[in-house]
Amino acid sequence: MTVTPEPAPPLLSARQPRSGAAAPPSWLRSESAPHPVAFPVREPLRALFDPRSVAVVGASDNPQKWGYWLARGALAGQHRRQVYLVNRRGATVLGSRTWPSLAELPQEPELVVVATPPGSVRGEVEQGLTAGARCFVVITAGVGEPASPRDELDLAELVRAHGARLLGPNCMGVVDDATALQLCWGAVPAGQVGLISQSGNLALEIGRLLGRAGQGLSRLVSLGNQRDIDAAEMLQSLVEHERTRVIAAYVEDFRDGRRLARALACARAAGKPVLLLAPGRSAASGRAAQSHTGALVSSLEVVDAAVAEAGALRLDTAGALVDAAVTLLAPGMRGGGRVAVVADGGGQGALAADALAAAGMSVPPLRELTMSRLRGLLPAAAGVTNPVDLAGAGESDIGSYAAVVNALLTAQDTDAVVLSGYFGDYATGSPQLADAEAAVADALAAASADAARPVVVHSMATTETPALRVLRRRGIPVFDRIEHAASAIARAARWTALAPVERPKFAVAPPAGDGGYERTRELLAGYGLSFPAARFVADADHAAAAAAGIGYPVVLKAMGLAHKTEAQGVALNLRDEAALRAAFAAMRPRTRSAAFAVEAMVRRPGSVELIMGVRQDASFGPVAIVGIGGITAELLADTAVGLAPLTRDRAHQMLGSLRQAPLLTGWRGAEPIDLAAAADALVAIARAGAEHPEYSELEVNPVLAHPGGAIALDAHGVLSAPPAAEAGTDRR
Amino acid sequence: MTVTPEPAPPLLSARQPRSGAAAPPSWLRSESAPHPVAFPVREPLRALFDPRSVAVVGASDNPQKWGYWLARGALAGQHRRQVYLVNRRGATVLGSRTWPSLAELPQEPELVVVATPPGSVRGEVEQGLTAGARCFVVITAGVGEPASPRDELDLAELVRAHGARLLGPNCMGVVDDATALQLCWGAVPAGQVGLISQSGNLALEIGRLLGRAGQGLSRLVSLGNQRDIDAAEMLQSLVEHERTRVIAAYVEDFRDGRRLARALACARAAGKPVLLLAPGRSAASGRAAQSHTGALVSSLEVVDAAVAEAGALRLDTAGALVDAAVTLLAPGMRGGGRVAVVADGGGQGALAADALAAAGMSVPPLRELTMSRLRGLLPAAAGVTNPVDLAGAGESDIGSYAAVVNALLTAQDTDAVVLSGYFGDYATGSPQLADAEAAVADALAAASADAARPVVVHSMATTETPALRVLRRRGIPVFDRIEHAASAIARAARWTALAPVERPKFAVAPPAGDGGYERTRELLAGYGLSFPAARFVADADHAAAAAAGIGYPVVLKAMGLAHKTEAQGVALNLRDEAALRAAFAAMRPRTRSAAFAVEAMVRRPGSVELIMGVRQDASFGPVAIVGIGGITAELLADTAVGLAPLTRDRAHQMLGSLRQAPLLTGWRGAEPIDLAAAADALVAIARAGAEHPEYSELEVNPVLAHPGGAIALDAHGVLSAPPAAEAGTDRR
Repeated sequence: MTVTPEPAPPLLSARQPRSGAAAPPSWLRSESAPHPVAFPVREPLRALFDPRSVAVVGASDNPQKWGYWLARGALAGQHRRQVYLVNRRGATVLGSRTWPSLAELPQEPELVVVATPPGSVRGEVEQGLTAGARCFVVITAGVGEPASPRDELDLAELVRAHGARLLGPNCMGVVDDATALQLCWGAVPAGQVGLISQSGNLALEIGRLLGRAGQGLSRLVSLGNQRDIDAAEMLQSLVEHERTRVIAAYVEDFRDGRRLARALACARAAGKPVLLLAPGRSAASGRAAQSHTGALVSSLEVVDAAVAEAGALRLDTAGALVDAAVTLLAPGMRGGGRVAVVADGGGQGALAADALAAAGMSVPPLRELTMSRLRGLLPAAAGVTNPVDLAGAGESDIGSYAAVVNALLTAQDTDAVVLSGYFGDYATGSPQLADAEAAVADALAAASADAARPVVVHSMATTETPALRVLRRRGIPVFDRIEHAASAIARAARWTALAPVERPKFAVAPPAGDGGYERTRELLAGYGLSFPAARFVADADHAAAAAAGIGYPVVLKAMGLAHKTEAQGVALNLRDEAALRAAFAAMRPRTRSAAFAVEAMVRRPGSVELIMGVRQDASFGPVAIVGIGGITAELLADTAVGLAPLTRDRAHQMLGSLRQAPLLTGWRGAEPIDLAAAADALVAIARAGAEHPEYSELEVNPVLAHPGGAIALDAHGVLSAPPAAEAGTDRR
Repeated sequence: MTVTPEPAPPLLSARQPRSGAAAPPSWLRSESAPHPVAFPVREPLRALFDPRSVAVVGASDNPQKWGYWLARGALAGQHRRQVYLVNRRGATVLGSRTWPSLAELPQEPELVVVATPPGSVRGEVEQGLTAGARCFVVITAGVGEPASPRDELDLAELVRAHGARLLGPNCMGVVDDATALQLCWGAVPAGQVGLISQSGNLALEIGRLLGRAGQGLSRLVSLGNQRDIDAAEMLQSLVEHERTRVIAAYVEDFRDGRRLARALACARAAGKPVLLLAPGRSAASGRAAQSHTGALVSSLEVVDAAVAEAGALRLDTAGALVDAAVTLLAPGMRGGGRVAVVADGGGQGALAADALAAAGMSVPPLRELTMSRLRGLLPAAAGVTNPVDLAGAGESDIGSYAAVVNALLTAQDTDAVVLSGYFGDYATGSPQLADAEAAVADALAAASADAARPVVVHSMATTETPALRVLRRRGIPVFDRIEHAASAIARAARWTALAPVERPKFAVAPPAGDGGYERTRELLAGYGLSFPAARFVADADHAAAAAAGIGYPVVLKAMGLAHKTEAQGVALNLRDEAALRAAFAAMRPRTRSAAFAVEAMVRRPGSVELIMGVRQDASFGPVAIVGIGGITAELLADTAVGLAPLTRDRAHQMLGSLRQAPLLTGWRGAEPIDLAAAADALVAIARAGAEHPEYSELEVNPVLAHPGGAIALDAHGVLSAPPAAEAGTDRR
């Protein structure tokens, strides 16, 4: 197989804003603006993955040095391309001739890999550019003497100015199985998973785990410090890479998260699952990531929202990622939550069912027809409910495994079969069973393919038996722990069920907010949010006049306070002018406010308090949040997150995803709240936040959602800090 | 090492109530009554674990038959005991002479293992008893032709009548490493974990996983149908078994759960962790367990409460159990939540920190002193916060691993060190590093032992390298996935932190309940629960008189309804006689009740509604439950469970374990509720339920917990069904 010619990727720009530069993130451009469609500098990407010639600068004979592994890997591709080993001292390396410098090569090196000390990197790249190189992979952990980020940025600019591209620095190289390109430490197994990683060791770990599972890598791109080529661009390249069927990525630094999200959505549209590994569940992981690449770990909840909305999955560990990858690649995988469990003995069946249920899958009772077929295949003591218990049938006839699994697959009352326990291990204690067991493995794989439904095996075997080899070769996922099988099948089902979320177009509007309540309220009202009648006044007489106009009871609020309630700047349910004046007289000296709002007092029977807001995320831009409010709001943290702006469907979905969502739809005989009105309120706030990035936060707490509508009882805005003046400072 | 002479176990009765018989579960006896202290039939347990002679009935040369593995295993112990192979046809088996029947043996067989068809089992056992056997292990899946539970029970009774003991039927045998007893299918690795299992295949799976982790089994007892020897008794035997340092158990059927819980508490007192694997998280696992041994899976929440109160851990899968076992056996393991992470590269460090945090551990910043020591050991690019990032230092000097880990262990600002990533895998790509890496492994183990703090390793190696062999040999837990390392270390810390719960003595009282509100209320009030003033009346005039005595406002409740509120049988806040009479006039025809309660209307500002109750669990007897009430009670299911009766401490602990417990202690500036009064109410209800098993359920909803006390606003009891008359029916 050869590398597919790369059509112009629709989403990616040739000139990436350099990291740390002041280029605006893409959400600050209008999302309705046309994205750069063409990818003018296409050639260098071929030069990265399938160069006609490659030069290894710093080639070495010492296996403890990078230059050894790079040279060795490069030489392995000699049948396909010209390989130049560059070594200052001119010795032979790995028995091959070397060249003293890039300047002396007889032909231009399309791809140059640099593994020399930081102080020499710039010089080598300059020589490479002069020699006509189109792409550089810089393994060296830094650039310059002493190494500095500034020097890395300058190097990237230099490379791009020559129409060339740069991977790294501080990366672990690139591997492309189809083109015999192996520029990396050690060796990685070949397979159908394309991997992008911001961590070299994690890439190696994922490679090893894939190899053990009978899979491997189609491509590996170690991103390093992403000074030119970045995660989103490489994601896009894997979408177009035919041999890659599942994309895996380890990303710490999301940079322009919307751009990455669009690449994820592209992969989804192409039917390729993306499995994203991202740290950030703990404060300590933020410290680790910072010490690593200086990356800014985005709030994981926002990452999760972005990833799910784009139809991809986020995983927590390398192991979970590999399990999901292998299972998504299983023959017949097409989702669905119903699983049949086959075990020998009730214990393993019960624990398998528990693990599947804990992972969110269902292990439903089988239809009578299915059970009667199973009864025909099994002894009387067997269990033919779900889990199916062979009760020793496999020991007297190992073919029982295939017969039972086949019966379940063809009965079609389940979406997948999990086989848990002894199968795969018969040959260990009874070598004379090895052939028969392998034949059953073959029959299992054939049954899965015929029925177009996946079979997933959990085996007690602790060595690679012939049967397990057959299973893995035929793509049947094999796990040594039932919990891995259960999580993996659940994740594959989840990926299949994910529907990518549409996002309305929007354009950044002229700044309108000043952070004050009155303007914020006006702004939100302009987007369609309902508020109670209000007047803004400065003294008691005007307050009384306002209240008379609005009608009692009223609420009095002091303006200009960060925390009105805590500062006793709110008086509720003032029933007449006397009460209002008393409240005013007490509130003015207490709060020292110069301005006050007089509002209609709103009570709605059967209402539920919601909190709605938008905040500007450093990587993903405006993010909408909705949660159940009231006294337990912080305690239960029952919230949903979505990238703003939102469609009404997405707003409904977010409301429906709350743990306490049943409170909204007629809980225990109550009248349901007006969900459409609540969703509209969320849509309005999300759009306001998206179009007004001058607010770093916009919050409405509470939105009173009630059977007749939804009304905002307050609004709070925080203005963004003005952009830093210095060009080199990234305001993110 | 020899088997410890068995002192009289304090908790176990020689004559177990036979399964299915009507013997009362132990909680129906008073817990203050003396338990049988002696264990009169002690000899047969020695006959089970270290017999002077063993006979294998059904010995065979065919490796697909049980008789082959039993014979092979028995012969392996020939140096320690007389072995007789019994085979009807009189052929030699495995080159050894056989005997045609037990009757013809030259000497009595202390232990007889039976693996012949069900129809022959009774006959073989009778012959064995005549020949003087003291213990039987019945592998055969059933007894009788056709096999029946009745025949199993009769067999057990016969055996016990002869002062002998029976393991099984339907078990997978018994293994004792110290006594070279190997009566089981296949082989299990030797080690320090004693395992009891109701599932044979699970026992084998656990054995394999332990073996891979460098551990193994000290004893294995496959319980089968537990017709005589059962889980609790075997647990107790492992408590006394010197070579067993961790006890693992797979149990489906808890039978007399209190007895099992006492055995767990015994293990705790002896300092031996018990890791209990139990199914029951899903409906399907209940189906599986039933098809297996006909066991009744107890509600897992109750099992969890019982296990935690006894100071043991419940796990969900074999893998998790093995991870925890190996980690509890690690040198220096002593609990504590602070973990230092060491990785090479930020990626693995970040994911390790995330996994640890997700498991409930803390990865805190290091002290300045510790960091400065690390700075002295590592290059400038390294990260010396927590996680520590070697930043390649391990590649230039593999000794860095030992130096850094040692510095962290001796700094004593963490309780454990997790090393995650490349270590253990250097020898794979660079065989010349194998010795150096193994030496570092040795240094890591020594550092852990010296500092008496555990080191846990997650290694990318997919093969067993010399370094990993050293680590495992020295007891350092090695995992191939960081999430396993994290969960295991968290579980070990949790076990260390568990404090066994005391339970007050109690005695079953004469039945006093009739299920009606009035009597139930009286009963609970007798235990000290506060109720509002109330009178029970039959007509409106008496209601009015009662209300006049109590004082308005009052509540009117109709009696005899299962769901008063739903049936509109409750009228709240009746302010005067007219309101009361109107409510009465409406309620009587609506509910057709003949009796009514008139109660003082209670309102307490700052109150929180709690639900408290007790129910009789089939296995564990009276179980107390407390939860946050109100509208979201069912939605959030925020509850805690404890075995009744409760000490005040335990009641406090249960209240404190609620997710919404902060609501009780002064949430957002509110006045704290009277926690002592709430705990006392729970203690009262728990004791009432324990002493009055005539109630299968007792519930008080709500208990209004407020700053000045706790008052019960209702009470509801469900009477137990009368015990079945037939002796053979187990009412559980």
